Amino acid sequence: MSTAAIDLLQQRYGLAAETRPAVITNAITTALFSHRSVRAYLDKPLPDNTLETLLAAAQSAASSSNLQPWSLLAVEDPERKARLAALAGNQTHIRQAPLFLVWLADFSRIQRQADQQGVELQALGYLDSFLVGSVDAALAAQNAVVAAESLGLGTVYIGALRNNLREVIEELHLPPLVYPVFGLTVGYPDPDKPTAIKPRLPQAVVLHRETYSAPATEAQSIQDYDRSIAAFYQQQGLASANWSSQTFQRLNKVAALHGRERIGQVLKEQQFDLL
Amino acid sequence: MSTAAIDLLQQRYGLAAETRPAVITNAITTALFSHRSVRAYLDKPLPDNTLETLLAAAQSAASSSNLQPWSLLAVEDPERKARLAALAGNQTHIRQAPLFLVWLADFSRIQRQADQQGVELQALGYLDSFLVGSVDAALAAQNAVVAAESLGLGTVYIGALRNNLREVIEELHLPPLVYPVFGLTVGYPDPDKPTAIKPRLPQAVVLHRETYSAPATEAQSIQDYDRSIAAFYQQQGLASANWSSQTFQRLNKVAALHGRERIGQVLKEQQFDLL
Repeated sequence: MSTAAIDLLQQRYGLAAETRPAVITNAITTALFSHRSVRAYLDKPLPDNTLETLLAAAQSAASSSNLQPWSLLAVEDPERKARLAALAGNQTHIRQAPLFLVWLADFSRIQRQADQQGVELQALGYLDSFLVGSVDAALAAQNAVVAAESLGLGTVYIGALRNNLREVIEELHLPPLVYPVFGLTVGYPDPDKPTAIKPRLPQAVVLHRETYSAPATEAQSIQDYDRSIAAFYQQQGLASANWSSQTFQRLNKVAALHGRERIGQVLKEQQFDLL
Repeated sequence: MSTAAIDLLQQRYGLAAETRPAVITNAITTALFSHRSVRAYLDKPLPDNTLETLLAAAQSAASSSNLQPWSLLAVEDPERKARLAALAGNQTHIRQAPLFLVWLADFSRIQRQADQQGVELQALGYLDSFLVGSVDAALAAQNAVVAAESLGLGTVYIGALRNNLREVIEELHLPPLVYPVFGLTVGYPDPDKPTAIKPRLPQAVVLHRETYSAPATEAQSIQDYDRSIAAFYQQQGLASANWSSQTFQRLNKVAALHGRERIGQVLKEQQFDLL
């Protein structure tokens, strides 16, 4: 591996050589390994045809049975971005980024065609269809992220768009059988607020072979990771926390869902029956 | 755009210049636009460190609140691959590919840590947590697909791994709070069975600006697309069908879910409460 690649993998997996996987590097894998989330943007317009490029990349991702059960909603109006930022936990980067993409699971397009031809779509009411729409939107969005980074742009996913799902659906005029899976900000990263590569769990904790089996060293590996990520947050000038405590805090109380505990109800109102 | 890029976009969006978006091409966007699903593989081992490379790419994708609520299960045993192929609609490419990756939404790792520290995870029971696990697994998998293609490998997603979800969970010894979102075959494409770039819906049908609004020309655009994709299937020597009829067939009757109508029940047995 090149020195640059070793440096990248150190940032991703920590300094200990034993947790650093041997990987194949080329221009594309290096770009993937280099991903970081960007939450501070320049007030600078995007290159021409950025949106078309990200959408073409997104549509090039696989789609279950080629259903293409998703749509892309591009928000550039400052006032709408501000309202969406307020609904999504006051994330100021939604206002700051020139482009805010909302990734929609969308079965309404298919339903409109079926209505015209008098076809009933009985399978739509099942949880699996909801899952297919959500997963296909995610595959598409991830391709768009990779494309955006290749243009020198930064992104961050906004899951908090589901905090106030009903209000977001109304703001965006979403018809039944459509819901926003998540948002994505797109813009030039502010070089005065650089972001770093976030360390992840060691591969040995995430990878299973043949059958699922948690490694005997899992708890110890996670303790080591907790120390790595606490050091990372400290370097970034953020409140020192570790992965376990953050994860527990995020999942301990229903209140930490910030409204997302209601998405099941709102989705049913949007005619996702989730059977 | 280069001639090569125009050719790629013609394959993706059809011959009519008006449905061909203007895009920015570079090595990475060109690679993304070139994606095709591969269902025929050579009997040839993968490059050394392929698995570590795909996993590092996958772990480099964003994760909601850094929960990392997914795991990767790598299957190489021919007998296990054969059993999984039988469970997933007899897809022979699962047996043929040297590596079959199962992408797991996995909250059991966090639950094990919480149990050790006596922490309750009340938020786990909500639909949003199930969605976060599934979406994060999808973002990770898509990065792995992009990485695999950069190594000259081909892939295809296997959603049919959910057809017999209970049996797959037992085959892979998955504990509660873990489920296979989908599978992914990985191998060298068989050059004797080349695959083509599948045309997608025109961007005008998929893209909305500021608010959701189906274009007035939607039905006409879909009719045009139906003709494009019928021609594509004919070129590929496949039974001629169009997008609308295929989509209706896939969603018309519950029977077309091939068992996936039961995933809600099986997931609840796996302790995803889906509240």
